[in-house]
Amino acid sequence: MLTDLYQLTMSYAYWKAGLDKKEAVFHLFFRRSPFNGAIAVTAGLENIVDYLQNFRFESSDLDYLSTLRGSDNAPLFEEEFFKYLQQMKFTCTVDAIPEGNIAFPHEPLVRVQGPLIQCQLLESPLLNLINFPTLIATKAARICMAAQGDSVFEFGLRRAQGIDGALTASRSAYIGGCEGTSNVLAGKLFGIPVKGTHSHSWIMSFEDELEAFRVYAECQSNNSIFLVDTYDTIEGVKKAIEIGHWLRKEKKELVGIRLDSGDLAYLSICARKMLDAAGFTEAKIMASNELDETIITELKRQGACIDVWAVGTNLVTAGTHSALDGVYKLSAVRDPGGEWKYKLKLSEQMAKVSTPGVLQVRRYIDDEEYVADVIYDTQLGIPDHCSIIDPFDPTKKKVVNQKWKYRDLLVPIFSKGKCVYNVPPLKEVQQTTKNELNRFQPGVKRFIHPHAYVVSMEKQLYQMKTDLINHLRTTL
Amino acid sequence: MLTDLYQLTMSYAYWKAGLDKKEAVFHLFFRRSPFNGAIAVTAGLENIVDYLQNFRFESSDLDYLSTLRGSDNAPLFEEEFFKYLQQMKFTCTVDAIPEGNIAFPHEPLVRVQGPLIQCQLLESPLLNLINFPTLIATKAARICMAAQGDSVFEFGLRRAQGIDGALTASRSAYIGGCEGTSNVLAGKLFGIPVKGTHSHSWIMSFEDELEAFRVYAECQSNNSIFLVDTYDTIEGVKKAIEIGHWLRKEKKELVGIRLDSGDLAYLSICARKMLDAAGFTEAKIMASNELDETIITELKRQGACIDVWAVGTNLVTAGTHSALDGVYKLSAVRDPGGEWKYKLKLSEQMAKVSTPGVLQVRRYIDDEEYVADVIYDTQLGIPDHCSIIDPFDPTKKKVVNQKWKYRDLLVPIFSKGKCVYNVPPLKEVQQTTKNELNRFQPGVKRFIHPHAYVVSMEKQLYQMKTDLINHLRTTL
Repeated sequence: MLTDLYQLTMSYAYWKAGLDKKEAVFHLFFRRSPFNGAIAVTAGLENIVDYLQNFRFESSDLDYLSTLRGSDNAPLFEEEFFKYLQQMKFTCTVDAIPEGNIAFPHEPLVRVQGPLIQCQLLESPLLNLINFPTLIATKAARICMAAQGDSVFEFGLRRAQGIDGALTASRSAYIGGCEGTSNVLAGKLFGIPVKGTHSHSWIMSFEDELEAFRVYAECQSNNSIFLVDTYDTIEGVKKAIEIGHWLRKEKKELVGIRLDSGDLAYLSICARKMLDAAGFTEAKIMASNELDETIITELKRQGACIDVWAVGTNLVTAGTHSALDGVYKLSAVRDPGGEWKYKLKLSEQMAKVSTPGVLQVRRYIDDEEYVADVIYDTQLGIPDHCSIIDPFDPTKKKVVNQKWKYRDLLVPIFSKGKCVYNVPPLKEVQQTTKNELNRFQPGVKRFIHPHAYVVSMEKQLYQMKTDLINHLRTTL
Repeated sequence: MLTDLYQLTMSYAYWKAGLDKKEAVFHLFFRRSPFNGAIAVTAGLENIVDYLQNFRFESSDLDYLSTLRGSDNAPLFEEEFFKYLQQMKFTCTVDAIPEGNIAFPHEPLVRVQGPLIQCQLLESPLLNLINFPTLIATKAARICMAAQGDSVFEFGLRRAQGIDGALTASRSAYIGGCEGTSNVLAGKLFGIPVKGTHSHSWIMSFEDELEAFRVYAECQSNNSIFLVDTYDTIEGVKKAIEIGHWLRKEKKELVGIRLDSGDLAYLSICARKMLDAAGFTEAKIMASNELDETIITELKRQGACIDVWAVGTNLVTAGTHSALDGVYKLSAVRDPGGEWKYKLKLSEQMAKVSTPGVLQVRRYIDDEEYVADVIYDTQLGIPDHCSIIDPFDPTKKKVVNQKWKYRDLLVPIFSKGKCVYNVPPLKEVQQTTKNELNRFQPGVKRFIHPHAYVVSMEKQLYQMKTDLINHLRTTL
């Protein structure tokens, strides 16, 4: 039932018109990379596998649908349709790019092939389950790149867009490279490491800050990171150091301090000097407060001595770029046993004209570095020594180098409704992200004005698309 | 378990240090109104009531917590603490501003009083459950104000931040004034009206557009809104009109058309003329495509003939302003049976210094218009003829007019753990929003550079806060 009403009214019409046996191919892709970058880190597939394995209509769903009325107050659906829905079994074939891979605009992330009605019903849930995780995994990857190997933790639960907004963000942030989360439920559900310090209220509930630090240190086994800015940051650091000396006598060690306000560059440099001078060279400095990849880059440029970055709101909601613009488009239909008829949606803007076919993406690698992606139609095929064309500037043509190795990005997930994919452990997905990012040259990963990595179209597919556009424009 | 780890490590330390019996008062408030406006529409309380009524630790939660380790690899918590958590019963007293009210920065939306540990554990979930709904209800109210009485529908499921990001957005958008949603699950769960048309893929699955419209119209009882821009919008309108004539012969009526791309002002004006000229003066024009309050205002300014606005991404994710900056601050502690000790957090910025006390908000009304809000401490009280001070410019003082009527915004929700609040039906909450918005002068509701509505502090509270700041600054 996690779908838009129009998927159901369309399904109803397909069914009534006897078109429910028709087969279709849909592709899920995005048109623009988020955050003005070039790349996106794929995430969300595990949720899709769960969702599709449990795809069915409950009787309470059908009871609810039977209450819906049209503008003439007649029921939206007839009873027979509910029987049809109740008996519907998921039989689609699904291919997708696994989680933790790098994708570019217009590349299909998911391809769904099967009965038209089923494909249609999946539009809204698939988009919901891919758009947000991919957005956050990408944001996390950017933030981790900005942190240049420092630890990054996701601390965003309180500002996230809903409970699941928080949980999915924790999981996606981990895929993108974060070491852990503050969200205990995410830790429990996904096995992500959890991390935390203490809040201002801990300090405020005591008569003075030193006492508050001491009691906290006493009560934790060896887990004391002190938040030092409740009243005055520098005074707070002094008190943390005092407790650090006391901890050593107790055979414990000051783990670190956290800065949560003020000039994080200046304050972290001061705090580092103070900690080092007092002999706490191993104590970590953690920083939080409206961080993102731009602020982290700036703070590092100004010599900030921050070892651990705790990133909240701008990571879990993606800040000012709060949605990936993923879409799900029909690209082919056929009668059962018939030939595919290729389909596209026209638009005044070339970038919004969809690509027909049953598509796949081939990624070429030269030595250890990725050099080009080619979108091709699996029916037309792709020659070994194939010609490729930039679809947005067809004067840019190229022939792939025969020495390049390649792999196809979309892998089988469901075959005629049966799951054929083993979801890898989350830790492995995180490693995949890291490895895959390393195979692109730095320019591709630049935060703004990135290098335009080659995402081209196989020549025959390009020609077929162009012919179809011309045909549609002349027959309008 | 929907909480940040540090709430648990702090609770553990409170418990170990024997401070768990201490009583505390916390307030949840935001510091800046979203979207550069002045107001926020409160939402999320119903979820909080559910959450608090089910507040407990499951044994699987405690099993998970027992696996957590500190940096020295010792367990984070000892076994005895889990027994304590398992036996914990929610006993807090909670007051809150009901849903569908208008709130301003620094006004407490929720006040929690009870055992320090319980108050602390609630920080993250309460913030998560209030920040996002309030953000979206506010965005929806702005969009509905921009639509000036036209129907607005929320169509955002596919780009929402997670499943719950979509559901909570549908519910909050309804509170803010939207007439319905495309999200069928939101319709089922919350009883919100659901609405839908059809997508481009419906058209594309047929050989031609006219045939696609005809079959759709044939299969729906009387529910046909045709999406006209799959190939060419004006041609699409012509075909919709052709089907409209056919529908009349069938004793049905063309409900409307939907525009989803191109210049919506120009195209809607053309389409209106075409529909009117063909005798379809009652057919509605629905528009979608990256809408928000700014674009709707601009389109209306240019004479767009749009009757129904379908708003997606920018409504359900709140666009570039993707989080409300709600915080939850300790303001008083006491030993059981003792006197309250008032607490505040210092900051270099006055706006970030928290307000001590056990707070309430009084809203004054003159005739039918709200004129001022006053934050006061329930212990210090509020005189009838009270003096009020602008906390950010203490030279601005005022005495409330004795003719003004008033009401206190925070109402009892839980009394010592027992729910004492009847959650109103959602439809009623939507009506509350409408009524409450009507009681503010237009300037307060301006989208940008709004009139500064008076949100002041009762004089004794202001004095107490100032004294406490001075005391803290001198004893640092």
